[in-house]
This record gives sequence, C-alpha cells and structure tokens, in this order.
Amino acid sequence: MSRWTFYTAPATCALATHITLHEAGADFTLAKLDFGAQQQQSAEYLKLNPKGRVPALVTEDGVLTETPALLAFIAQRFPEARLAPLDDPFRFAQMQEFNSYLASTMHVAHAHKRRGARWVDDAAAIEAMQRKVPQTMRACAELIERRLDGPWVLGERYSAADAYLYTIAGWLEGDGVDTSTLPRLLAHRARMNERPAVKKALAELPN
Amino acid sequence: MSRWTFYTAPATCALATHITLHEAGADFTLAKLDFGAQQQQSAEYLKLNPKGRVPALVTEDGVLTETPALLAFIAQRFPEARLAPLDDPFRFAQMQEFNSYLASTMHVAHAHKRRGARWVDDAAAIEAMQRKVPQTMRACAELIERRLDGPWVLGERYSAADAYLYTIAGWLEGDGVDTSTLPRLLAHRARMNERPAVKKALAELPN
Ligand SMILES: N[C@@H](CCC(=O)N[C@@H](CS)C(=O)NCC(=O)O)C(=O)O
Ligand SMILES: N[C@@H](CCC(=O)N[C@@H](CS)C(=O)NCC(=O)O)C(=O)O
Repeated sequence: MSRWTFYTAPATCALATHITLHEAGADFTLAKLDFGAQQQQSAEYLKLNPKGRVPALVTEDGVLTETPALLAFIAQRFPEARLAPLDDPFRFAQMQEFNSYLASTMHVAHAHKRRGARWVDDAAAIEAMQRKVPQTMRACAELIERRLDGPWVLGERYSAADAYLYTIAGWLEGDGVDTSTLPRLLAHRARMNERPAVKKALAELPN
Repeated sequence: MSRWTFYTAPATCALATHITLHEAGADFTLAKLDFGAQQQQSAEYLKLNPKGRVPALVTEDGVLTETPALLAFIAQRFPEARLAPLDDPFRFAQMQEFNSYLASTMHVAHAHKRRGARWVDDAAAIEAMQRKVPQTMRACAELIERRLDGPWVLGERYSAADAYLYTIAGWLEGDGVDTSTLPRLLAHRARMNERPAVKKALAELPN
C-alpha cells in the first residue's frame, strides 16, 4: 500500500477522519489547507476535490471525500484495528446511521452559523440562521444524549462513530449550547481525550 | 428472516430505499405515513423513530434510519442482488461517498425550499432560502453531471446509489432547475424508469 495523503484544515469535521487514520495505524502524509487564504478553492485543490472541502484522502486507487464514507473505508481497510462492526450488517448499519445523522443533520445545523451564504444571499437571512443555531444544535445533542448509554456510541465497543461524535459535539459550546446538562456527551468527550489517537491528531493539528 | 416494515411517504427521499428493497427482492410491508396529517410527528411514530422522518425500516434486529445507512445495509443483507461493490472497499467507499454527498449536500439544498423552518424562524429568511434553491440544486446537479460517465453512478455496474440519484435528481424541475442542459442526468433517469423495481415502487406509492 502506498502512502496516503490526507487533506485537512484546523477545527473542521476532518478531525474525525484524522483521528480514525491514527486509530487504524495508517501511514499517511498530512496536508493542511489554510482556509483563511481560501486554499480549499485553489485551482490545484479543486482538481483533486471539486467540492472545495475537507476531508479528502488521496489513496493508491483515487481520491475519497465525505466523512461517513471515509470512516467506513478506513475501518474496512484496517480490519485488525476493529473500528467498525464489520461482521454484522445490522451493527455496521447502526454505525453508519449515526454517522449519516451527524453528516446530514447535526453538521448541517452547525454550518448555518458560519456558512450561511451557501443557502441564502442576504445578510438579514444569514443572521436569522445564526440565531437559530444554538437551538438546532441543542436538539441534535439531546437526541444523541438520550441514546448514549454505553461508554461508546455503539455500546461496549469503540468505533469510528466515536471520533465523529467527538468532532461534531466539540462544536457545541462555540455554537452557544450549554453542555452542562449533557453529562453523557461530556463523559464521552473526556474518554476520547484520553485516547492516544486523539492526542496525536490534536498535537499535529490543534483545533 | 422475519418480514420487515418499511415506513415511507410519497415524494420523499424514502423512494431510494423503497426501490432498493425491490431490487433486493426483500420481503417487506409498506407503511405509508400521511405528512399532510403530520403522522411523522405522532407519538406512535416518534417512539419508533424519534427523528420524525422517513425512511425508517423495522427489522428483526431493530429500527434503522438514514438513507445511506439503509442502502448499504440492504446491499449487504442481499449480496446476491449485487447492489453494491461489497468485495472492494475502495469501490464501496465510492458508492458511500456519492450517497453521503446526496444526503448531506444535495438533499439538504432541496430541503431549504419546503423545510426552511428547520433553520430559521422568520418568514423573510425562509423566502430568502427558497430563492436560492434553484442555484444550489443546479450546482449539485452539475457536479454530478460532469462525473456521470457510465450508464450508472459507479460505471458499468448498477448500485443502490442509482436509486438514490434517481430520487434526488427527480426533484430538480420542481426546484426550478432547467434539466435540458443536464443530458446525462436525464439519460440516467430514463434508464431507471425502465427498471422493474422502480416501476413497482412507483406503482405502490406514486410520487
Ligand atoms: N459532507 C462533507 C462536508 C465537508 C465540509 O463541509 N467540510 C467543511 C469543513 S467542516 C469545509 O471544508 N468547508 C470549507 C468551505 O466551505 O469553504 C463531509 O461530511 O465530509
Ligand atoms: N438524513 C435523512 C433525511 C430524512 C428526511 O429528511 N426525510 C424527509 C422526507 S425527504 C422527512 O421525513 N421529512 C418530514 C419532516 O420534516 O417532517 C435521510 O437521508 O434519510
């Protein structure tokens, strides 16, 4: 297997994939984009990922994007790391359901704070979006809090969904959500902070 | 395997899963929700799916939601139907990448037309969202059009991603996008319309 290149930027959803690459023990080069300088929109990067976003992973077979796809891919390519219930389609689907919810609902709720211009053109509407973010993010967090009854998202076994939850739930305070009433999410974050892969990813690219 | 129950509603993203259940030859009961009567918010349904959305699939192991998770699950449970490249993690990830893009970007762009109240409270902002939908949906469609070079999303082989593309791209005209300049998407739709599973799903639940 040739060395992969992983495109990321600080304080983005790409942290989930970054952590998971380390959990897997994958051999990869980190390529940091500077969003301040709009590097995600450079001609060079758009050739690689026409969506102009991170994460993107350059593998020996081609480029892959989209967090849920990347998390399942890394888990399948490194089965010995046990990052997903690969032998049980229902349990695997539960991981994917969780990841898909984060990608299509909770991450999207968050994006209405800083990326409102994706969906509206005028400033007043952008502000209206920003005002509702604490409420939509809280609703997502509460849905997860109610179901989080193991140490990990899938119960006793750690999976790539945990790195993703850690990443997206890490935005709650910045999005105006009071997390003191979300004890399970806070305990999950504390458990994640102890994992060597998390420490390694954050040391390489502080959030 | 006990009979599954599939919760859906007309003209929703659940069509993708509905088609895929028929492609798989799965044995299932169709449970239609009436969105006009807000049945997706009934206490009974929320017990089953606290998100109050479709699709939801009740299996012998529990309830599953989220289109990308359901499509991969059905493909894995019915390997003989060949609905995903199950033996090749990279190709499988490409299907998942496509599905994840539809769920987290294109479906979300569409939802700003009728479900704006998810993200803002005032009427002017909801209208501002609606105005941009033709542009955001067109951008998503063009990104897909440029890459659609086989008869199917993954090239020569049909996969569950095709049912999903058919479903979401089926919203383009209603969202104000002129599809006459998207010939590959139109050809894809025409190919899909010939498939028995598509005919069966649409006969059971007209769009
Ligand atoms: N659905 C994609 C979303 C990727 C995404 O939105 N990434 C953000 C960072 S969290 C980004 O690159 N934004 C750059 C921009 O919008 O210019 C995924 O889950 O990977
Ligand atoms: N991320 C979910 C989205 C599900 C979803 O938004 N479904 C819509 C229909 S397309 C729904 O049930 N809406 C009902 C409502 O908002 O009340 C998926 O991909 O399955």
